[in-house]
Amino acid sequence: MKMIKDLGEHNAIAALTANLKAVGDDCAVLPMTATHDLVLTSDPLIENIHFTAEATPEQIGHKAVCRVLSDFAAMGAEPQYLLVNVVAPPEQKFQTLEKIYAKFEVLWKTYGAEVVGGDLAQGPVLELHVFGVGRVPKGTALLRSGAKPGDQIYVTGSLGSAQKSGKHLTFTPRLEEGMWLRESGFVTSMMDISDGLATDLRHILKASMVGAELFSENVPMVGSLEEALYDGEDFELLFTSSETFDYPVIGKITDCPQELLLDGIPITDKAFEHFKGE
Amino acid sequence: MKMIKDLGEHNAIAALTANLKAVGDDCAVLPMTATHDLVLTSDPLIENIHFTAEATPEQIGHKAVCRVLSDFAAMGAEPQYLLVNVVAPPEQKFQTLEKIYAKFEVLWKTYGAEVVGGDLAQGPVLELHVFGVGRVPKGTALLRSGAKPGDQIYVTGSLGSAQKSGKHLTFTPRLEEGMWLRESGFVTSMMDISDGLATDLRHILKASMVGAELFSENVPMVGSLEEALYDGEDFELLFTSSETFDYPVIGKITDCPQELLLDGIPITDKAFEHFKGE
Repeated sequence: MKMIKDLGEHNAIAALTANLKAVGDDCAVLPMTATHDLVLTSDPLIENIHFTAEATPEQIGHKAVCRVLSDFAAMGAEPQYLLVNVVAPPEQKFQTLEKIYAKFEVLWKTYGAEVVGGDLAQGPVLELHVFGVGRVPKGTALLRSGAKPGDQIYVTGSLGSAQKSGKHLTFTPRLEEGMWLRESGFVTSMMDISDGLATDLRHILKASMVGAELFSENVPMVGSLEEALYDGEDFELLFTSSETFDYPVIGKITDCPQELLLDGIPITDKAFEHFKGE
Repeated sequence: MKMIKDLGEHNAIAALTANLKAVGDDCAVLPMTATHDLVLTSDPLIENIHFTAEATPEQIGHKAVCRVLSDFAAMGAEPQYLLVNVVAPPEQKFQTLEKIYAKFEVLWKTYGAEVVGGDLAQGPVLELHVFGVGRVPKGTALLRSGAKPGDQIYVTGSLGSAQKSGKHLTFTPRLEEGMWLRESGFVTSMMDISDGLATDLRHILKASMVGAELFSENVPMVGSLEEALYDGEDFELLFTSSETFDYPVIGKITDCPQELLLDGIPITDKAFEHFKGE
């Protein structure tokens, strides 16, 4: 009998959603009005998986909401409303939840996405499931599928060590950058880096049916190159364009489908993935 | 130190959302276009809380999605899109998830609400968090706040024993009825019965600042009167109107704020509530 851990998160999602509407970007983009598309996304935040007992309530609230906001940033979309399902054990300190909700209000004032509903239910560990609803001008959402051979590969900030440095709990979602990049009209593909540069770039290569070469000396990094490539949870934007932008050029798109090179040498996958190898 | 179990689910939600946009209906209703409002809701379904190991994957998928569809029915709204966050232990049988997703597809064909995204993450028990997006003609959503003294109280089906009979896993969400009742223009308040008639009717009384008297002999019930009043998870619609409808009249709205009588005698609250009394 096949178990989820035998497949890993990405294969399991791919298999489950094979018959459903094609899902493969940071958010689902759907028709809404004559001028705008509807943009939807959801992210879970689970105790002992996405945060530990050391995280403060404010950090937990920050990461739960900002992971979703980063998904909107990755499409160049504007988040509007959030719903939050909270799961908690009966012994959960109520003050922790109060502080988490106070953080939601701070984030609403900063980023404009308001918590308008949700639910509270009992379960074995603390979890926050954040659902986001937003919009983007019709037909302009930035997808993973538009990268072209010859495009340059850009990243909006330093990569690696996000767990060690605590950045994964305090990062700034690149909403302004995402919207500005979309409005430029020159970005061919975009996503946010949650699973690590090497893994996430492969999503663009697959969706765009192209390859890529990374230049290690150009990758802005906090720790080692290995950490920059594989750590994940940086929540920086990764995008491609044939135009010049004031961000580090970390590589270029090639015409060899799904081939990923680092300084001319093929690199392997070993990013963090839920379930896999446990 | 106050814990959630000291407050109970409803009090905890009320306290947490006090500073956020007023939330008190089955769905949040928000401005979208000149002709339609956006309707949003989310519901968790958690192993050992909302279903047990005896439930089939099809029943788990059914309850997860139909709880959300019932929220749309309660507003007279049309569901359009769903996102599903799945939480599962690494040892989760993958086939169970495949069957749950196959059920989503069946429900999409029946009720028109399509799963367009979501996430899969690791956690101690199986959970499905379903988030729904839909719409309703502008300003027409049926709320809990419009009941008027003299209105009759209606219910769309039999109440009680939903756990015992298994109805909680197989119920039909009253979407058609909900939309038809909204279109009639004669319904003053509506909600779905998830926590039990006595508890849920109190939400209408509070939101509408009215009272009610129930007539026990008119309540359509599966088991005992006590089960019809307190069991919950019937997912029938409870609505008020001064007009005549072809549904059982189970009581009338009075002008004594928040007073709930059964055959002339005040009744007490003892519905199922998460956390409380555990």
